[in-house]
Amino acid sequence: MHTRVAALLGVEYPICAFSHCRDVVAAVTNAGGFGVLGAVAHSPDRLDAELGWIARETRGRPFGVDLLLPPTYVGAERGGLDADAVAALLPAEHREFVDEILRRYRIPAVPTAAPAGALNVAPKGYEPLLEVAFAHDIRLIASALGPPPPDLVTRAHERDVVVAALAGTVEHARRHAGAGVDLVVAQGGEAGGHTGEVATMVLVPEVVGAVAPVPVLAAGGIATGRQMAAALALGAEGVWCGSVWLTTEEAETPPVVKEKFLAAESTDTVRSRSLTGKPARMLRTAWTDEWDRPDRPAPLGMPLQNALVAEAQRAIIEAAERSGTRADALATYFVGQVVGALDRVRPARAVVLEMVSEFIDAVHRLDGMLEDPR
Amino acid sequence: MHTRVAALLGVEYPICAFSHCRDVVAAVTNAGGFGVLGAVAHSPDRLDAELGWIARETRGRPFGVDLLLPPTYVGAERGGLDADAVAALLPAEHREFVDEILRRYRIPAVPTAAPAGALNVAPKGYEPLLEVAFAHDIRLIASALGPPPPDLVTRAHERDVVVAALAGTVEHARRHAGAGVDLVVAQGGEAGGHTGEVATMVLVPEVVGAVAPVPVLAAGGIATGRQMAAALALGAEGVWCGSVWLTTEEAETPPVVKEKFLAAESTDTVRSRSLTGKPARMLRTAWTDEWDRPDRPAPLGMPLQNALVAEAQRAIIEAAERSGTRADALATYFVGQVVGALDRVRPARAVVLEMVSEFIDAVHRLDGMLEDPR
Repeated sequence: MHTRVAALLGVEYPICAFSHCRDVVAAVTNAGGFGVLGAVAHSPDRLDAELGWIARETRGRPFGVDLLLPPTYVGAERGGLDADAVAALLPAEHREFVDEILRRYRIPAVPTAAPAGALNVAPKGYEPLLEVAFAHDIRLIASALGPPPPDLVTRAHERDVVVAALAGTVEHARRHAGAGVDLVVAQGGEAGGHTGEVATMVLVPEVVGAVAPVPVLAAGGIATGRQMAAALALGAEGVWCGSVWLTTEEAETPPVVKEKFLAAESTDTVRSRSLTGKPARMLRTAWTDEWDRPDRPAPLGMPLQNALVAEAQRAIIEAAERSGTRADALATYFVGQVVGALDRVRPARAVVLEMVSEFIDAVHRLDGMLEDPR
Repeated sequence: MHTRVAALLGVEYPICAFSHCRDVVAAVTNAGGFGVLGAVAHSPDRLDAELGWIARETRGRPFGVDLLLPPTYVGAERGGLDADAVAALLPAEHREFVDEILRRYRIPAVPTAAPAGALNVAPKGYEPLLEVAFAHDIRLIASALGPPPPDLVTRAHERDVVVAALAGTVEHARRHAGAGVDLVVAQGGEAGGHTGEVATMVLVPEVVGAVAPVPVLAAGGIATGRQMAAALALGAEGVWCGSVWLTTEEAETPPVVKEKFLAAESTDTVRSRSLTGKPARMLRTAWTDEWDRPDRPAPLGMPLQNALVAEAQRAIIEAAERSGTRADALATYFVGQVVGALDRVRPARAVVLEMVSEFIDAVHRLDGMLEDPR
């Protein structure tokens, strides 16, 4: 396929796969797409090991890294918070609410080796990750929240690394373009994870117009070749997909969550602040309902909410593998509305190749609408 | 253009224009598209006059009529409510809240010839409209809410009239197909007016799969040929547009609202129950904010909310044409997220022809992505 993004990334198909799972990243890159490792919760050592593994598996084919670089978060004025400072900021009322949920759903505490820390959202958190990332032969670095800092753009360009940033509004896209990104990912509100409210169908063409000549990837609601064709018809030059990989063979999605995704309808997601403190689309479950009730405490800001609930989330997933608890009702994870279309487990490579095949069919179908049938 | 919907409706371009304005309906039909008159608030006499006018203007070219046929509404168990019964069900707290808004924004009362009545949502309300519609040479009758009643489908098919119904979820689409409709309009949550939450990008392909072989029109977020190409790539065989006509030369949109639409961004809409009692997307203004505040009464059900606010809405629009009030802050109307792309006034005919031209360009651009550039 021929688009500026395919040429820029050096891939056969401009299909970017965002995943926290190295196996998915490598499989998509090896299938002719472009794998992007979501590295926000990684330690530097683990990121180093994973990128080394991906590089060996993909033998010179291109891949990227995605970090959270939010413009606003709790503690930004101090350059970020350490784990103790985060712990000190978690209100007793919130801790008690989380404990009460676990008790009510009969979730035993998990004996954890290390307490859950803060997300790597501040420079002191993500700088070590950046150093590791730039020590590997990455082709792209992406900012999942907020425009990349100027020094990041400079360092990336010195190494011939492409800089991308996700945008949920035209205003954000303009800000990213102003910060010097090479690619804008226009992500519609139907997407999983941190997302805005403007739908892909509306957002993509307006971002394409606002940031030209910067090329645009479309995200949100894209899991098939028909949807890829729609995204490219809107003016995007590639797609950025997340949800579709969560039900692949390679994905490390917990079994209880994978089964829920395979059974879910498109109406079963909700935008909720209950996992990270910023609005993110996820499967609607008893967990999101508990946090939506007006008589319960409001979620904390980023990164406090994640610190508040990370251990509880781990306990819920572990408990769901055993009987005798109601963990199954609580278990959730980030996913987009396109979850309704995910009804079988496939290898990630098959997802890429089916998308390309369906894309070609969709283009030929459109051609047929223009031809004179006589 | 060649799709089953174009053939079924007998049009050159499968572009359906939903509008309450007869001039838009006639202009779109005369441009090779398909105009559909939204007739929910019409009296039988007025509907008769408008359909007669459209038939004369379009000289045998096809057009349609759209009604609200909600499956649930206040008073359904009694077969609907008359104006006195509706008035008796409006709580004093709600009446006082509306009056208080008008006082606070300095809106004078409008001397009205007739009090605002109930929406024609019950058989006794819409049956006279159906009789008028079937007395004219309409090509399509659409149900904007809920599946069409069996006798409506029978009567339409006896007269060779196509039956369509709007769906915001796959479940609704299946119900409509089961009721015997000839066309399903899959309307994404980004659409203006009564709408669900699943985005067009996700909803259209799942509805296409669920109701096959019934053909599908896509609605929500479609105002340009790029968006039309995206919709048809998703599997739709035509598009159903509403918002894009509101800023055309022919539209009777009040000037204050038209100006707001031309200035609005895609982030400026909200789903609100404040106009009809059912969630509908509209421009976010002081009116929707007033109804969103937690300390204010919740909107009533359909058709009570419309009866409660119809006169106030008329007073706001009239006051906005004069100085000395804050009516401008309150003025709102149904519109989709695509309002962000509406930035100039064009004839409806030009909208149709530009959509077709952009559609052709988009298809050729997709073709180019598949060609070998050597």
